[in-house]
Amino acid sequence: MRSAREQGFSLVQIPGGPGWASSSGLLTSSCPFFCVLDSGYLDSQYFVHSPGPEPWLPPPLPGNCRWWLCARECGLWLSLGGFHERGQDWEQTQKIYNCHVLLNDKGSVVATYRKTHLCDVEIPGQGPMHESDSTIPGPSLESPVSTPAGKIGLAICYDMRFPELSLALAQAGAEILTYPSAFGSVTGPAHWEVLLRARAIETQCYVVAAAQCGRHHEKRASYGHSMVVDPWGTVVARCPEGPGLCLARIDLRYLRQLRQHLPMFQHRRPDLYGSLGHPPS
Amino acid sequence: MRSAREQGFSLVQIPGGPGWASSSGLLTSSCPFFCVLDSGYLDSQYFVHSPGPEPWLPPPLPGNCRWWLCARECGLWLSLGGFHERGQDWEQTQKIYNCHVLLNDKGSVVATYRKTHLCDVEIPGQGPMHESDSTIPGPSLESPVSTPAGKIGLAICYDMRFPELSLALAQAGAEILTYPSAFGSVTGPAHWEVLLRARAIETQCYVVAAAQCGRHHEKRASYGHSMVVDPWGTVVARCPEGPGLCLARIDLRYLRQLRQHLPMFQHRRPDLYGSLGHPPS
Repeated sequence: MRSAREQGFSLVQIPGGPGWASSSGLLTSSCPFFCVLDSGYLDSQYFVHSPGPEPWLPPPLPGNCRWWLCARECGLWLSLGGFHERGQDWEQTQKIYNCHVLLNDKGSVVATYRKTHLCDVEIPGQGPMHESDSTIPGPSLESPVSTPAGKIGLAICYDMRFPELSLALAQAGAEILTYPSAFGSVTGPAHWEVLLRARAIETQCYVVAAAQCGRHHEKRASYGHSMVVDPWGTVVARCPEGPGLCLARIDLRYLRQLRQHLPMFQHRRPDLYGSLGHPPS
Repeated sequence: MRSAREQGFSLVQIPGGPGWASSSGLLTSSCPFFCVLDSGYLDSQYFVHSPGPEPWLPPPLPGNCRWWLCARECGLWLSLGGFHERGQDWEQTQKIYNCHVLLNDKGSVVATYRKTHLCDVEIPGQGPMHESDSTIPGPSLESPVSTPAGKIGLAICYDMRFPELSLALAQAGAEILTYPSAFGSVTGPAHWEVLLRARAIETQCYVVAAAQCGRHHEKRASYGHSMVVDPWGTVVARCPEGPGLCLARIDLRYLRQLRQHLPMFQHRRPDLYGSLGHPPS
């Protein structure tokens, strides 16, 4: 989906057993399934010009949002990223947090991660992005959350370039890493799949990356290609460039077996380069 | 090449300007070129059964070796990995270090890195590997070394699974990461290229990975596919599965420009997950 273009959403009932992850756009299932959905920068100042003279106002979280209703009424776990939340000094700075929110099947917020790495880059052919102009960096990592599908670690988009974050989450117990994203049209073909696969291989986690796709406005397009990667680094489900839906089974027995065969976390050398194992907040 | 099979070596004179990296097998050039060469586990107990009743004896480093002669006589910088070196308690343990040695164009040893992550794994279909049975882990990282091609960070094979090491080297100034390797026949197709490309993207370094290839004996085969990756993550040179030679230009101006456009090292958050920037020894 493209934020600020598709304001509607669809709801699809998915059959299956426990431990499924879905990625991309518009998807759901019923408990004990697990669902990942990218709501993106809904109504975002990043993607649309202000429709009128009124200043755009990000809602505080948790808001009275259709996704809360969706989780509760359908009995779904939902991963929603990146919502805009008023920053701690909103009145002075007018800056927001870029938030990844995890809802349980009762519609309760069980975790909120505020993006810690802000994307201030100038990629030739893709146009400049200065996220810190409007956003403040999150103050902490978020402890992985137990869900019916496994322990979920939360991150957002540009965070995937920093192995430190995914390793810290894995060392804190994560089994599934989630990266709701709006990757660029130049960085996407070059880096999206290779970074997601590497994060999966080196953390031995599933990686679920729902992605915005298509053109938001004349200056911005997102790469799409939502995917799920297994802990061996195999892409086990993927969407095409456009809107779509993909599903993958989360097999924690396989994950544990792999970690036994290739016990990388026992081979690390924090004595040489420091530890990333600081427990998240 | 396959250690313990190809005991000979070739020497090829390479034309070109400054800042070239070559990868795989048998190669050289003359100063100010830079050369990477994988000598592999020469005469190694890993790859051949002992030819006689005499115990195999690893030479101390630096030895009177043909590679020293080669560097000096041809005026080459050579990256040689993994040599066997007697461990610090050799008399008691009979264990070795797995060494990556960098020679300058005078034949002098300018750096020695002893592999810090030992590969004790049991990959289905690839057979078990218990490197620590015969090898002791290196006690430290090695500071990146200034060469005519750029600042070289040293690592070996299995090390590439640990982003901590490559990030620590990059934060200590590395511009080129080197991974002489003998990757497995199962892990190779699954992980070799994706990990090398990810290491390049997230450190914004060139990655030069010379690789053993082919079958060493009935229980062990190596994947080959030596390659050079640029700091954007593009594979700019690669060998086929078998013996070969590939060349790539090292363009440090491009590297610096990329680091300006995408200043990831300024975006890191050591306050959240610790720092990997401990200066190597």
